[in-house]
Amino acid sequence: MNWWQDSVKQPNLDAKAQAEQRQSQLTKPTGSLSELENVAVQLAGLQNVQKPSVDAPWICIFAGDHGVMEENISAYPQAVTRQMLQNFATGGACISVIAKEYNATLQVIDCGSVGDVYSYAGVERHCIAPGTANFSETKAMTEEQCAQAMQLGYDSAEKAIEQNADIYIAGEMGIGNTCAASAVACYLLNEPAEQLTGVGTGIRAEQLAHKKQVIDQAVQLHRDYVANGTEHDAFRALCAVGGLEIAAMTGAYIRCAQRGLPVIVDGFISSVSALIAVCLNPAVRQWMLFGHKSAEYGHQRILSELNASPLLQLNLRLGEGSGAGAALGVIKLACSLHNNMATFAEAAVTGEKV
Amino acid sequence: MNWWQDSVKQPNLDAKAQAEQRQSQLTKPTGSLSELENVAVQLAGLQNVQKPSVDAPWICIFAGDHGVMEENISAYPQAVTRQMLQNFATGGACISVIAKEYNATLQVIDCGSVGDVYSYAGVERHCIAPGTANFSETKAMTEEQCAQAMQLGYDSAEKAIEQNADIYIAGEMGIGNTCAASAVACYLLNEPAEQLTGVGTGIRAEQLAHKKQVIDQAVQLHRDYVANGTEHDAFRALCAVGGLEIAAMTGAYIRCAQRGLPVIVDGFISSVSALIAVCLNPAVRQWMLFGHKSAEYGHQRILSELNASPLLQLNLRLGEGSGAGAALGVIKLACSLHNNMATFAEAAVTGEKV
Repeated sequence: MNWWQDSVKQPNLDAKAQAEQRQSQLTKPTGSLSELENVAVQLAGLQNVQKPSVDAPWICIFAGDHGVMEENISAYPQAVTRQMLQNFATGGACISVIAKEYNATLQVIDCGSVGDVYSYAGVERHCIAPGTANFSETKAMTEEQCAQAMQLGYDSAEKAIEQNADIYIAGEMGIGNTCAASAVACYLLNEPAEQLTGVGTGIRAEQLAHKKQVIDQAVQLHRDYVANGTEHDAFRALCAVGGLEIAAMTGAYIRCAQRGLPVIVDGFISSVSALIAVCLNPAVRQWMLFGHKSAEYGHQRILSELNASPLLQLNLRLGEGSGAGAALGVIKLACSLHNNMATFAEAAVTGEKV
Repeated sequence: MNWWQDSVKQPNLDAKAQAEQRQSQLTKPTGSLSELENVAVQLAGLQNVQKPSVDAPWICIFAGDHGVMEENISAYPQAVTRQMLQNFATGGACISVIAKEYNATLQVIDCGSVGDVYSYAGVERHCIAPGTANFSETKAMTEEQCAQAMQLGYDSAEKAIEQNADIYIAGEMGIGNTCAASAVACYLLNEPAEQLTGVGTGIRAEQLAHKKQVIDQAVQLHRDYVANGTEHDAFRALCAVGGLEIAAMTGAYIRCAQRGLPVIVDGFISSVSALIAVCLNPAVRQWMLFGHKSAEYGHQRILSELNASPLLQLNLRLGEGSGAGAALGVIKLACSLHNNMATFAEAAVTGEKV
């Protein structure tokens, strides 16, 4: 048995029930704040507090390169993965601005990118592999590499908890990674690429058709390895056609749930990691909030499988945790309303219907 | 000719074009921030600046009571209007918490509520009428009363501009006001109550059927007065079946547009005010952002007429500017991203597709 199958912490049902009770006493028609009520109540249960908060968010961006880039499946060159790593750390990327806006700690982890040895201030460099292998030809990762990548997520979750984070966001960077995420999803949902593949950062129609073909062929190539009939299918799918950053996010989600730190799941790729995590350890689902419904085709299908309704639908398709990061503001507001609105009794407002 | 027909300021198209140009240079795939890009670009044009901001939001809640409450069309008693006025001012209401969260100035104006003379710190009391008349029997407001209420909105917009507000939100409080807003919408869209009437704060099914009947009968009663065949139809619809706070919001939207202060429209009732404003003076539409798609039945129909897609869909149905207020966070973030993300050149990131 691997660490990711260890049991998950139980959310506190009493704290959740008390939060529900408080919501019913606030000066507003019953249920009129809907999603804002729900997220505050859920968070109270997860954080086991009367007054939930997102004062200390932790955002970790996991990066990795993809061997399947040899198949011409992305709009941007592979060098962008490295360039963006530096941009995250120097503060110019979308998620850097979001982190500053919401006083979040931003951790940047390179799980394995293509190129020479480097040293960027603020980037934790690992090189499990110089990018994954081309899954059109061979498995993207060995099982050992995949476990190493998941361990990076585990370690990040532990570090966030050690530094008293109250919520955790995993984001990703890796040119080509929608291709890998779609391929994993094809295994998990047993559907063809047609249902689960989108334009990513913006490929043209003919490139999209090619991308789907590459995925369908790879899924066929590794089918015997993945379909071994045990509970390890999701792990093997991840090894066969996933990515280092996808594995790392999976590890982070599972460890957060084991330690009791709520997470906000981001867009398409993060949701595939979330689905892998739930396949490996179903109780992990309880610790997930969902930030944003992405414009990437196939995200809704993954969300449905996870029974998830994200807070925001802003049509974003950037990745790097940006949708979950944007949701931080809404969740902060939900907490503030829960904690600071007056009750009917305090405000001498009639709470009874006529 | 009345002041509300005076011409509206023109948004600055150069500033908007420059903002679009900047968005195309930021380190992200083209268009990948979608709604966040759009709102920043629109705001740059409206504020005529390179770096749009919502650092000084102005929120004004207009309250009024409704004579049609005699017809038993609401879930809560009329006394709640007054009670909530005090709650706004003392900081316990949803919009009070939102205002604090986003450093907004909160102005509270009673346009005409039912009850004795009172003095609440922080509430500007007017009494154009002690609530509207019961529009099941007679016109809700005289034309003079309606113009007085619109003037309160005008004055609020002027005050916001004088105090250097950079964005304006109008909210409303008035037990029974979804009934009035639906009735006005029936005239403006020439549709029956069935298409435009919802449960408001939460009436039961049989009460909803009754509410629709009350509205359809009132619309029939005042049809000859409203349908006089001139451009004044919207004003007369407002007088016949509207409300003091609905008229005040209409006035505020129009004056903001004339002076060049962008507004964020809230939910169902505010959107009806926005539609009245656009009927009276179509160019006002350019100054409107839309914050939230409400759970109230009929809101989507009003939004479609205004060609509007709100930023948020959180299923709120509270009113008091809460949906627009919740959108402040998203708009603030959009501005921050627009102003602070690095360009491809600054970050040495490849912006060209392969």
